[in-house]
Amino acid sequence: MSLIIIGTVAFDAIETPFGKTDKIVGGAATYASLAASYFYKKVKIVGVVGDDFHQDDIDTFTKHGINTEGLQIKKGEKSFFWSGKYHNDMNSRDTLITELNVLADFDPIIPESYQDCEFLMLGNLTPQVQQTVIKRLKNRPKLIVLDTMNFWMDVAMDDLLETLKLVDVLTINDEEARQLSGEYSLVKASRKILAMGPKYLIIKKGEHGALLFHEDKVFSAPALPLAEVFDPTGAGDTFAGGFIGYLAKVGTVNFNNMKNAIIFGSALASFCVEKFGTEKIINLTEQEVAARVQQFVNLSTFTIEA
Amino acid sequence: MSLIIIGTVAFDAIETPFGKTDKIVGGAATYASLAASYFYKKVKIVGVVGDDFHQDDIDTFTKHGINTEGLQIKKGEKSFFWSGKYHNDMNSRDTLITELNVLADFDPIIPESYQDCEFLMLGNLTPQVQQTVIKRLKNRPKLIVLDTMNFWMDVAMDDLLETLKLVDVLTINDEEARQLSGEYSLVKASRKILAMGPKYLIIKKGEHGALLFHEDKVFSAPALPLAEVFDPTGAGDTFAGGFIGYLAKVGTVNFNNMKNAIIFGSALASFCVEKFGTEKIINLTEQEVAARVQQFVNLSTFTIEA
Repeated sequence: MSLIIIGTVAFDAIETPFGKTDKIVGGAATYASLAASYFYKKVKIVGVVGDDFHQDDIDTFTKHGINTEGLQIKKGEKSFFWSGKYHNDMNSRDTLITELNVLADFDPIIPESYQDCEFLMLGNLTPQVQQTVIKRLKNRPKLIVLDTMNFWMDVAMDDLLETLKLVDVLTINDEEARQLSGEYSLVKASRKILAMGPKYLIIKKGEHGALLFHEDKVFSAPALPLAEVFDPTGAGDTFAGGFIGYLAKVGTVNFNNMKNAIIFGSALASFCVEKFGTEKIINLTEQEVAARVQQFVNLSTFTIEA
Repeated sequence: MSLIIIGTVAFDAIETPFGKTDKIVGGAATYASLAASYFYKKVKIVGVVGDDFHQDDIDTFTKHGINTEGLQIKKGEKSFFWSGKYHNDMNSRDTLITELNVLADFDPIIPESYQDCEFLMLGNLTPQVQQTVIKRLKNRPKLIVLDTMNFWMDVAMDDLLETLKLVDVLTINDEEARQLSGEYSLVKASRKILAMGPKYLIIKKGEHGALLFHEDKVFSAPALPLAEVFDPTGAGDTFAGGFIGYLAKVGTVNFNNMKNAIIFGSALASFCVEKFGTEKIINLTEQEVAARVQQFVNLSTFTIEA
């Protein structure tokens, strides 16, 4: 049994009001697999890089017990590169450079050793590639989580709608939920989106936490108020990785476990933004994670006496 | 022992995407006192109206057990009037008309029968009038809650800072917390604001809930996701009234009771927005309020097993 995470493995150059980086390792699958590795030991990555991606970079995955057999390395080609600059409020950013490189014709390979997949995280990529991964698995995983973004709603809505029929959980942000559904109210949006295929919808609201919708139930998870958000890059992917990693660990998919999974994902994401790139989430201890989760418990617990 | 609520008692004309009203009764003290009356029976209002405010309008308070001895009625003058139009997202609005009328030279009168005040809610008004009320009370109440807005930060910041030194709890929204502190991060903003006087700071985030800061503690309260927000007018005042009404009922001021007070205040506010003006909050049953509070419990409860 294993957890497959597919998504970009890339280089990012990030500028925030606090400073800027050279090319550092990033990408949705990078953040998500590192986050998941804190909860589950059989994480397997699917992605593609160029030969500018060095052994050191791959070692980071290996040290976290992440299987990289499904990470294709294209000789003579370059890895996906993204560069962006965050505004002062850290809630908006400008993309400075996007070089697709190896991602332009990415054809995901699922190694035979990955066919024991029980949990599948489809990180943000073209809906067609996401769909291809599902079709290349011989057995349908117990849980398929899909992350996407407004860009695919703009340019590949039909493919996205087809892919949504095949998944169990969709994670998007509030603006994307509004765009996908055509509804401003998130309650109305959730009803329309749950009718598109997913049984669970997670709406990420950044500094305002997250909402989980399932049937007629809703759960509101808080975000940890932070004095300093240093670099938001990868927070959503870290959330998704922590979320599915926790579910893979507990093994049973239900509303209660999903609520907890959201808290664990949020805790990992709250670490992610404290330093540039993956710097903070490659060196966490179990104790740090447990203490952060306890902060979320303290943050949101109240006891109403009847 | 009693709870005094001071603030505007006014007429509003409201336009939303769902419809528009003629002049209806509104004002911060109206919403807050009605909300408080669901939890506490000795609510006393301080305000001023013109003789366009009819006996029927006063009867609404009386029916809820609200003492109106401190509500001045100015013969031959007109009540404060506000008219506004909400945009499609319901999060922003244009003020169409503001007629101060009797509010222009409001001198709050504290009847002798109000001198048993233990809980004091200073609704949004000029900081000087708010301060006058504190000074006219012979004994300092056990708890003073102050609500204010960006307008007073623009035109009367010095007065506001003086008044803040005298209160226990400040309720403002996230943009106002940023303006008052000069800090974007709400954690940093809270530290600066708590150094200005208040021991507790409540930051209202509308559809994203509320944050309570006290010493080094923080509590995040969810907002109930609603399919339809019909009219947001008065939601903040309803929240504040429910909040202090609940505290007056339990009598003891501490962090735990404040957390519950925020949930009860949020529950009342979630009713407020379901109809125009005060229409929904003048006719609630105890059972409806209890069921709504239970929705907040269900919405935010999770159980992490160690």
